Amino acid sequence: MIIHSRFKDYNVEITEDLSFFDKLKALDNSEFVVDKNVYRLYKEHFDGISSDRLIVIEATEETKVLDTALTICEKMTNIPAKRNACLISIGGGIIQDITGFAANVLYRGIKWIFVPTTLLAGCDSCIGGKTSLNYKRFKNLLGTFYPPDEIFICPAFFQTLTQKDYESGLGEVVKFNIMTSMDGLRNIENEIDHLLNREEDSLRKCIEKSLSFKKSFIEVDEFDKGERIKLNFAHTFGHGIETVTNYAIPHGTAVAIGMIMADRISENRNILSHEIVERSEKVLLKVIHIDYDLRKIDFDGFIKAIRKDKKQVNDQLTAVLMTNVSKDLRIVNDIQLDEIKDAVNYFCELYYK
Amino acid sequence: MIIHSRFKDYNVEITEDLSFFDKLKALDNSEFVVDKNVYRLYKEHFDGISSDRLIVIEATEETKVLDTALTICEKMTNIPAKRNACLISIGGGIIQDITGFAANVLYRGIKWIFVPTTLLAGCDSCIGGKTSLNYKRFKNLLGTFYPPDEIFICPAFFQTLTQKDYESGLGEVVKFNIMTSMDGLRNIENEIDHLLNREEDSLRKCIEKSLSFKKSFIEVDEFDKGERIKLNFAHTFGHGIETVTNYAIPHGTAVAIGMIMADRISENRNILSHEIVERSEKVLLKVIHIDYDLRKIDFDGFIKAIRKDKKQVNDQLTAVLMTNVSKDLRIVNDIQLDEIKDAVNYFCELYYK
Repeated sequence: MIIHSRFKDYNVEITEDLSFFDKLKALDNSEFVVDKNVYRLYKEHFDGISSDRLIVIEATEETKVLDTALTICEKMTNIPAKRNACLISIGGGIIQDITGFAANVLYRGIKWIFVPTTLLAGCDSCIGGKTSLNYKRFKNLLGTFYPPDEIFICPAFFQTLTQKDYESGLGEVVKFNIMTSMDGLRNIENEIDHLLNREEDSLRKCIEKSLSFKKSFIEVDEFDKGERIKLNFAHTFGHGIETVTNYAIPHGTAVAIGMIMADRISENRNILSHEIVERSEKVLLKVIHIDYDLRKIDFDGFIKAIRKDKKQVNDQLTAVLMTNVSKDLRIVNDIQLDEIKDAVNYFCELYYK
Repeated sequence: MIIHSRFKDYNVEITEDLSFFDKLKALDNSEFVVDKNVYRLYKEHFDGISSDRLIVIEATEETKVLDTALTICEKMTNIPAKRNACLISIGGGIIQDITGFAANVLYRGIKWIFVPTTLLAGCDSCIGGKTSLNYKRFKNLLGTFYPPDEIFICPAFFQTLTQKDYESGLGEVVKFNIMTSMDGLRNIENEIDHLLNREEDSLRKCIEKSLSFKKSFIEVDEFDKGERIKLNFAHTFGHGIETVTNYAIPHGTAVAIGMIMADRISENRNILSHEIVERSEKVLLKVIHIDYDLRKIDFDGFIKAIRKDKKQVNDQLTAVLMTNVSKDLRIVNDIQLDEIKDAVNYFCELYYK
């Protein structure tokens, strides 16, 4: 799949196996940045990469900061090719955020190849070029748009994810598939059990659908000024949940919960049919398993977290609501606290019943 | 003049006076970043801007670092509009580098208005979107492409520049005008004395010519992958001179000297006519006044500095040479040390005769 970007067109390849590693290892003037867990689990695949070409990073919110990106930049100054150097990064969204930023700011941008190893990164964040870093108490304050030059997605990586991380990725897969079309909804209804079994054919198909859907938004609005904002569907609430639970609930799962909340508001506003709400919930609930008790959520803290989101640009509360399953999304600026409260209660009743 | 960019189209306005300040002051959700000297010299124009909307920065190589950009970002988090906030920066190239980077990385890019107050920034760097920051011992290691949304150039600012800074700007003006065409060469021959007298009509005309010339390169190759590299003409040697003299010779003056050196190499290679070399030198020498004795230059240090430039991508020495005055520039990868030595000696004989 080719993604058209203002910076360059770049290719996404969903691979059969890890044989593309040999091609990457043979690249001149390249440096590898690898997630610590991935390195541990796939150590033999990194054989032959000398230590001066390899940086292993623990992916945490604490390492998703400028210092880590700068360490990478500094190490890359040893490559004589300078701005013709290439960064190859292998890991999930945090590794992508750090290395994408580093690749962007070093020599005003170097070549960058990304291998997503989490389902979340593979089905969503790997395209679109967003990078972000935490700064002091500000989560994701810093960031840029800088897509990779090439992306290799190998579903084999998703076999070694924890159930929690895997289901988090499924949250976004389900969301994208439902948003696409009635056919997408039917497709995910049929595939969800195969996906939960981590069947690679099914994964391949659903990842491709997710990325195609996202592609249609990012290509018309790469810099998130209009149409692309609609991809923020379910994220207003999702981000709030992540923050208020101190990231005990992972991103994709929080988004899945956020989708149930957003749809509840849509249904109450009579802009989304009960049938779609119900069918969506049925699939979503299959991928939501949380050990944090959301019935005890600090509601004021939740609202405060929503307001802090960089997508909120004034005192009113903005959210994206779904009005149909055919990319019909609406940016709504007058979300009321009562509606959010009802949506939280609704989700809790549904989930804890 | 409208500049077409991958990020957005942006407008450059050469203004009659400072009345546009009122418009800037009235902008909601905006923050001013102002060069300390400019603030001192034009203090009354900043009346009415509250202290929480104003950051005054001393523009030095030591402040052209991440920490300064981050201080700006952090201060801007106080603006409720978040990514709809606007940064207004007023100063020379260093202020542009710092604020452009800050505007780029805050919330993945905010609106940014730039008012160049040096001739160097006004006739050259203000368009093209390059930002850069020093990092540890690495000059300009970090940087991005991120053009302003609007640029206001007011030649009145150039009246208060020191002679040294003013002549540095003229170095680039002369270079651009000569590179444009035979007509450009004739134009600068006629205008140079008016420019040295800081006559604003003449400045306006020559700045416009400089920017038009640069526009034709950056619009076809915004990210410096091919055609735009030709704008590096005279910069290989210019950067080397800046570095080896520890920035005692300012950028535009170093580039003017670098142009004389590059043209010497072109003439020796029989790719540039003696007439053009001689006429160019005559104009260039009018704007070159240095108090550093280049006859005592550390030649090995000079070559080392050239090799460190991020535009040098392998062991060979690359430079851009002029082969005619009609945008005929050639990227040459086999520059010999002897040629550079001869060019340095040639310049010294010419300048110190």
